[in-house]
Amino acid sequence: MKDQSVNFKKESGLIPVIVQDYKAGIIYMLGYMNNEALKKTKKTGWVYFWSRSRNKLWMKGEESENKLRVREIVIDCDKDTLLIKAKLEGKNACHTGNKTCFFSRL
Amino acid sequence: MKDQSVNFKKESGLIPVIVQDYKAGIIYMLGYMNNEALKKTKKTGWVYFWSRSRNKLWMKGEESENKLRVREIVIDCDKDTLLIKAKLEGKNACHTGNKTCFFSRL
Repeated sequence: MKDQSVNFKKESGLIPVIVQDYKAGIIYMLGYMNNEALKKTKKTGWVYFWSRSRNKLWMKGEESENKLRVREIVIDCDKDTLLIKAKLEGKNACHTGNKTCFFSRL
Repeated sequence: MKDQSVNFKKESGLIPVIVQDYKAGIIYMLGYMNNEALKKTKKTGWVYFWSRSRNKLWMKGEESENKLRVREIVIDCDKDTLLIKAKLEGKNACHTGNKTCFFSRL
């Protein structure tokens, strides 16, 4: 069943999800969830995303072992963005080997 | 001229932008910028967004006085999300009167 408290985008069925370290406050990444990814995330306590490039559900860290353990899920005022506070199990959240995906100053 | 270091979405010409307090680390909101909003933000030092509902450029706080002063702009590894570290000038970032737009636990 679709979670009615979340406004998935009409066109894509997705919602952007910010992942922040539950303690240090650093932002690890932004990914996208569909209803299924959110359900899996809530059920398992691990962060799942919908990959827009590979067009499939994936668990963050399923290959890299850099998993994200959910501590809290927060939704914004207009219910179209999620913020997940998580604990990084593993060394780096970014596939480049950086701690976070946000490492380049514009 | 379009900023070539930023991957605006092909369909919409937009990029999601996370705004985080430059000191406390709390996340205020997520908005969207097009190329023009990013240019204005860089030029003025105030955060501008593209409003998807009103279909226009707007400066955050132009009416509410709750403006966001840019301290740093960071881009993620695949260049399709921005993180702006900012100082909130005013009391609350959210139009609901909350400090941040993320105040509801899911």
